[in-house]
Amino acid sequence: MNGAHSRLRLERAGIDTYRQPVVYMHRDCAVCRAEGFAALTRVLVRSGHREMVATLNVVTDDRLALDTAALSEAAWKALDPGPDAWAVFSHPSPPASAPALRAKVFGQRLDEQDFLGLMRDTVDNRLSDIELAAFVTACAGERLDHQETIGLTRAMVSVGQRIDWGSGTVLDKHCVGGLPGNRTTPLVVAIVAAAGHRIPKTSSRAITSPAGTADTMEVMAPVALDLAAMRRVVEQENGCIIWGGNVGLSPADDVLIGIERPLDFDSDGQLVASVLSKKVAAGSSHVLIDIPIGPTAKVRSDAAADALEGRLNVTARAMGLSLAIARTDGRQPVGYGIGPVLEARDVLDVLRGIPDAPRDLRERALDLAGALLDIAPGAGPDTGRAQAEALLQSGAALRKFLAICEAQGGFHEPVLAPHVRPVLASQSGVVKGVDNRRLAKIAKLAGAPASPGAGIDCRIRIGDTLRAGEPIFHVHARTPGELDYALEYAASQPDVFTIGTGA
Amino acid sequence: MNGAHSRLRLERAGIDTYRQPVVYMHRDCAVCRAEGFAALTRVLVRSGHREMVATLNVVTDDRLALDTAALSEAAWKALDPGPDAWAVFSHPSPPASAPALRAKVFGQRLDEQDFLGLMRDTVDNRLSDIELAAFVTACAGERLDHQETIGLTRAMVSVGQRIDWGSGTVLDKHCVGGLPGNRTTPLVVAIVAAAGHRIPKTSSRAITSPAGTADTMEVMAPVALDLAAMRRVVEQENGCIIWGGNVGLSPADDVLIGIERPLDFDSDGQLVASVLSKKVAAGSSHVLIDIPIGPTAKVRSDAAADALEGRLNVTARAMGLSLAIARTDGRQPVGYGIGPVLEARDVLDVLRGIPDAPRDLRERALDLAGALLDIAPGAGPDTGRAQAEALLQSGAALRKFLAICEAQGGFHEPVLAPHVRPVLASQSGVVKGVDNRRLAKIAKLAGAPASPGAGIDCRIRIGDTLRAGEPIFHVHARTPGELDYALEYAASQPDVFTIGTGA
Repeated sequence: MNGAHSRLRLERAGIDTYRQPVVYMHRDCAVCRAEGFAALTRVLVRSGHREMVATLNVVTDDRLALDTAALSEAAWKALDPGPDAWAVFSHPSPPASAPALRAKVFGQRLDEQDFLGLMRDTVDNRLSDIELAAFVTACAGERLDHQETIGLTRAMVSVGQRIDWGSGTVLDKHCVGGLPGNRTTPLVVAIVAAAGHRIPKTSSRAITSPAGTADTMEVMAPVALDLAAMRRVVEQENGCIIWGGNVGLSPADDVLIGIERPLDFDSDGQLVASVLSKKVAAGSSHVLIDIPIGPTAKVRSDAAADALEGRLNVTARAMGLSLAIARTDGRQPVGYGIGPVLEARDVLDVLRGIPDAPRDLRERALDLAGALLDIAPGAGPDTGRAQAEALLQSGAALRKFLAICEAQGGFHEPVLAPHVRPVLASQSGVVKGVDNRRLAKIAKLAGAPASPGAGIDCRIRIGDTLRAGEPIFHVHARTPGELDYALEYAASQPDVFTIGTGA
Repeated sequence: MNGAHSRLRLERAGIDTYRQPVVYMHRDCAVCRAEGFAALTRVLVRSGHREMVATLNVVTDDRLALDTAALSEAAWKALDPGPDAWAVFSHPSPPASAPALRAKVFGQRLDEQDFLGLMRDTVDNRLSDIELAAFVTACAGERLDHQETIGLTRAMVSVGQRIDWGSGTVLDKHCVGGLPGNRTTPLVVAIVAAAGHRIPKTSSRAITSPAGTADTMEVMAPVALDLAAMRRVVEQENGCIIWGGNVGLSPADDVLIGIERPLDFDSDGQLVASVLSKKVAAGSSHVLIDIPIGPTAKVRSDAAADALEGRLNVTARAMGLSLAIARTDGRQPVGYGIGPVLEARDVLDVLRGIPDAPRDLRERALDLAGALLDIAPGAGPDTGRAQAEALLQSGAALRKFLAICEAQGGFHEPVLAPHVRPVLASQSGVVKGVDNRRLAKIAKLAGAPASPGAGIDCRIRIGDTLRAGEPIFHVHARTPGELDYALEYAASQPDVFTIGTGA
């Protein structure tokens, strides 16, 4: 199996296949013939001291030499071969976690060892995207119980790095999301850090939304910091707001998010494991979780919030975290903007005290910062809100935010996408409700978050009176194609805003 | 959106990506820039009167011209562009069935319209492999109820062709599988057709096993017939044994099987929909289902068989099929061979009356043929078994089988793979049990069914006495690599055969 018919020269294919590594071999090459490889076979590739499992695509014409295998960009990065490198190809042993995956698909409970095997194979790229999709689906809805959620959380922490901040309190906050434009994190971090507390915040990019906090933050400062850089920023400024993907905290979560994104769903068990594994790995001790509740938010009812809160509390206790939970209004967007740049503009307007800045975003950020200051050890009772307001009012929070941006690599003003068109009200009346999901979808179709300047600018709120023909919101897009695409969908959904004819 | 920046010349990439169409574009081409396409974006491609949805892979070097898009083999076949063709690229509208998929993932019931939308998007390639994996997983276990199984079956029939045989009875049989080597179908078809009944059998290739009936049949005669050719064979010889993939009966099922295969699981609801949709589409009126039961067969207990039988009966009744069910012994393989050629050899030996032919395969085929003859309209009570035996004994079944092979395109003798090595008993004693799944896995690792001559030859049965060092079975493989790989796994699993030390 290790003879000449299992070796090929390596070259770079120059093809971007996103996360999943692909290896290209000629149909008639010695390796395909000897090993019985065909298209989509999973192949173990070893070169130097590295190895990876890749998916095979078979080249059927003479664009690839018989003695050569080409690697997609992800495969090239994973294997990192030297010049003139060769690789040895073989069948990978079946992933050790395959029986656990099968058991979960058929509704059996998994224990912590099962999850550990699954998460190890996930970060080692031993599970295909199809297998990962099956795992994510098998854990959806109520299919993970509390004990399994704890097991999955522990497993996610185990297969990644974990920061030790030494002694002292480490604060953190997280919003379970589902509410477009709800970008309180940069404000809360700035206020809490300005108050002198340590708050090393790692955020995700969007999973199923038009912008994650990392996407929004990235239009103002670099966020792809590694662990050493993150530590330096926090030691200097008390806080940071970076993307979690480069610090190796819960890397399994990053892979699962890559699968959940095209599927456009996530679930309680995975949500809790995702959030709390990141917090534990980040070395946090006190965590505030913001749960917006509304008919089209991620959490739709108090009953759903109860279930999620129960799962969060049980898991946090098992992981040794102090947890506070804030339930907030999730009926409509927060701030004006939906999309990275549009949300960043709102954040900066609040920090800068611009009179036109969105009041709802400002109030909510102060509430959350206050609640977080209140659970910190040594805080007086209910003093946090006033302290937060003072730090925002005085400009201390703005100075802290800009200092954090500088420490992360430099602040820059965000720039909106050039193509803009309004969506008009088709009838007159009072706004009774907003479908957050379809509004977010319009922003996504306009290009957010891949086009950071794209999205929605919406200043209408529940209770406002509209006249037919007036703009309800504006769509921003980077290209005419994306603008058309978003507006076409918007036109087909005239009831995203419920407009009543009563008073 | 239809300007110059949405059009590219088409060329053939010469890359086999199996079922899923892939389109390659340069990172800097006008289409990627105008539409905001990135790696793994789903892209709508229109050329001439055809369109398809493909997955984008992004070329990052100069191997592809900026004005050109390259198509993978599956994409090239789906679009079938003329010479010098151009295509227009845009964002596809989200699949209409996405809300139904999401609902099912979160445990809601689907109705027939939901399934119809899902199956239409499945055959139109509007769902990605990740979405299909989520669907298959969301339907696994007990997650489809009876009414949903009926809805899925009807939907699968609706999106494919359906044969009308005019008046008269149309018999059919199916084995739910899970038992290596259990290749009774060619024998049953030959006997029943020799008895003068119409039996147009379509079979699948292997889903999770080392050989499907179509794989086994293909080593003796062509099986990739289209609908017209199938009709001609059946009108001439009463029966056929062909691969179902070219006749367009339940094409959605073929796509789902392509996803279930790498996942290595399938489930009751999908199994019933898969089997019965094929039967309804084939125009069958009377169907016998063989359910082997054993601790490592697909159906492991009488309780599991009860559940499956209930689901089959309810669905068959809704679809207007007369159904008979035969429960058979599923504790160990049937016949000597596991793998296409090895199983074909057993079938031919039984038909030819070779004294050394496997008795268990012969007896089981006669039982099933007899049961099928008994449910045909006009049959006397319990006369089928004797009639079947007479037709086999007289050579009428062999003549009919060879005539069917000739009508399908010509009979040829199957050829075994050249590399053979025995696996030896590690201890002496009496064989108490066999792990069918791990035995099948060894045959798969040896290369079956992709290498048709590969697999296992095993003449040991439960109750036989073995001495340490005696061969339990022989492994056949096409290449030394595959032989090593299978033997390595076999060596790591010394308890595939349970050998007791009692009498």
